[in-house]
Amino acid sequence: MNNFTFYSPTYFVFGKEEENRAGEMVKRFGGTKVLIHYGGGSVVRSGLLDRVKKSLDEAQIAYVELGGVKPNPRSGLVYEGIDLCRKENVDFILAVGGGSSIDSSKAIAAGVPYDGDFWDFYSGKKIEKALPVGTILTIAAAGSEGSGDSVITNENGMYKRGTGSEAIRPVFSILNPELTETLPPYQTACGITDICAHLIERYLTNTPDVVTTDRQIEGLLLAMIEEGPKAIDKPDDYEARANIMWAGMMAHNNSCGVGRSQDWNSHEIEHELSALYDCAHGAGLAVTFPAYLGYVWKHDPARLRQFAVRVWGVPDEGDDESVINEGIARFRAFLKRIGMPQTLGELGGTEADIDKLAHSAVYGNGRGGKLYGFVHVDEEDVKNIYRLML
Amino acid sequence: MNNFTFYSPTYFVFGKEEENRAGEMVKRFGGTKVLIHYGGGSVVRSGLLDRVKKSLDEAQIAYVELGGVKPNPRSGLVYEGIDLCRKENVDFILAVGGGSSIDSSKAIAAGVPYDGDFWDFYSGKKIEKALPVGTILTIAAAGSEGSGDSVITNENGMYKRGTGSEAIRPVFSILNPELTETLPPYQTACGITDICAHLIERYLTNTPDVVTTDRQIEGLLLAMIEEGPKAIDKPDDYEARANIMWAGMMAHNNSCGVGRSQDWNSHEIEHELSALYDCAHGAGLAVTFPAYLGYVWKHDPARLRQFAVRVWGVPDEGDDESVINEGIARFRAFLKRIGMPQTLGELGGTEADIDKLAHSAVYGNGRGGKLYGFVHVDEEDVKNIYRLML
Repeated sequence: MNNFTFYSPTYFVFGKEEENRAGEMVKRFGGTKVLIHYGGGSVVRSGLLDRVKKSLDEAQIAYVELGGVKPNPRSGLVYEGIDLCRKENVDFILAVGGGSSIDSSKAIAAGVPYDGDFWDFYSGKKIEKALPVGTILTIAAAGSEGSGDSVITNENGMYKRGTGSEAIRPVFSILNPELTETLPPYQTACGITDICAHLIERYLTNTPDVVTTDRQIEGLLLAMIEEGPKAIDKPDDYEARANIMWAGMMAHNNSCGVGRSQDWNSHEIEHELSALYDCAHGAGLAVTFPAYLGYVWKHDPARLRQFAVRVWGVPDEGDDESVINEGIARFRAFLKRIGMPQTLGELGGTEADIDKLAHSAVYGNGRGGKLYGFVHVDEEDVKNIYRLML
Repeated sequence: MNNFTFYSPTYFVFGKEEENRAGEMVKRFGGTKVLIHYGGGSVVRSGLLDRVKKSLDEAQIAYVELGGVKPNPRSGLVYEGIDLCRKENVDFILAVGGGSSIDSSKAIAAGVPYDGDFWDFYSGKKIEKALPVGTILTIAAAGSEGSGDSVITNENGMYKRGTGSEAIRPVFSILNPELTETLPPYQTACGITDICAHLIERYLTNTPDVVTTDRQIEGLLLAMIEEGPKAIDKPDDYEARANIMWAGMMAHNNSCGVGRSQDWNSHEIEHELSALYDCAHGAGLAVTFPAYLGYVWKHDPARLRQFAVRVWGVPDEGDDESVINEGIARFRAFLKRIGMPQTLGELGGTEADIDKLAHSAVYGNGRGGKLYGFVHVDEEDVKNIYRLML
């Protein structure tokens, strides 16, 4: 196990109706003037926005609001949010929504006290200071509610880049599983896929002897496999929604990823898909991950065999290749069961896009031609992985 | 799943030689005058205390020290520590040792700014304010490095009582697995048992539909079953020590216990053993837990069957009683394998003590005659459980 630090100081408030404590929580963490930042329709239509405003009113906290966050949140709205916060002397950002609203809020929070262009932080510069961010989560997926990560799409070229810093880890996150009950099955499934992907990215390690975190990751994946289909079949299954929501946070606060190298190649390969096709990140991952595993398993057959046996219940008999292939097949079947796409074509892509996708994945944003995850893959490898998605 | 809050803001620094960052960490959390609080012999002999002092010197942080913490830490030394801190204007408590040193440090930290008797906090009063506590852990066991809990033995009657508050959760904890490599196998095994017990106390719940936390707990138990014997057989197996150390923290910071009722009857029943016989808490738990499970399994056979199958690998075939009994037998065999006692006699007890033990367990500290965990047990039940330890 490698040396590490782990610091997860987010205050989680979990359960039914807890969004009504928004005002209390903002006050607890020193906010006096809030930007409520959200996507659109459903947050307004469901009455959630009104309940949040009421809670802030009751706590006598002033606020302004900025809606319009899109999936794969854009740089343009971030600039708008930064300007608004400066003009209105906002000192606290409250994200209401899923990972997109939270990631956009984190970008605004970092940008407000910074003299330069916020995009610097998405081009390698470290975030040292940010306004505090709180979240009211409506989609279990990105894990952004408990992480210091943020991913933004630059509209000038439509490419996605990420950043990470303790400074933008939310000070509180309110997780009410009821709020996820109105999500359409497709979005629910995208979230489930994203959560599984966060776990598998950590599972694919080159660090030996990481038994404790291996068993933690497997446990969370087993929970997703059991609870995921329940939420698809019965969207108002509160218990399934609650299990998925907590697993989604635990999957990405890094408590199960400490002290071990992690992969994240699949996320990089997927980011090109959602940037080009504007598909949901989870849908892109559902297409990417089985293809990636099929391409890289020979790098560490023992680890991939363990994945097949412990996570997917493949009998621990026979040669590695057949056990691992059966594991990947069961993973694909699970993704299909919850309604996820299986091919590039279903995302709107064709073989003709592959050269462009692969080039951007390994050379975009100043990269040097390789992705350095579990396996070091170059442009030709990435083309081969995209071809496996056809 | 029940509504809950979860807040674990401890900054963990994990790995080889990280105790040399003690000064940096104390400074980070605002300490200017430190009480170094520890047990005795090994912390001094190993040179650890000198390394910690050197680190504080380099950070130009003043300190006083108080050693002498015993296993099952005593109220007398807490009073002494409180007096010393007040006299010396100490503003930070640095525990160096295992759960006993940490729990004693927490009691001192709560006592210093309090006008009354610190024991009030161990008799039901809530801790609102305390000096910050940091820890340098030398034993993986109690989980006190990541929890807001503390247990102290009152020397006036030799009974153990606990308290819990966010105010005494450590602000940082340095976890260097190397420091645990010199522990004798017996103490190592006591720690492993304590960690397993913290997990099983959370596993024994009456809250339905807690799949995510069930799988998390099972995963951590599987890691302990795999790594525990390695550390017994080869005390300087760094990787085993590291896996156990992280599991020990995760077992007790409550991330796998949120939103569900928990048991803790076995801890109450054991506390009487370690208070009367001054045995190690882990050794007492090794004797208590299998007896307790054998007594209460009928309360929820499905849960205990799941425990036998998923944690102990019992084939999922046949009637509940035989599957569960096989699970308990494997648990006992594991405890024996790592060198733990199996009976009350091995702890120094006899049948003649049972009436006294049971009476104190259910009536001590103002209790009303029952323990209200997974199963509500009265004095007669507790006697029966103690009899199963003969």
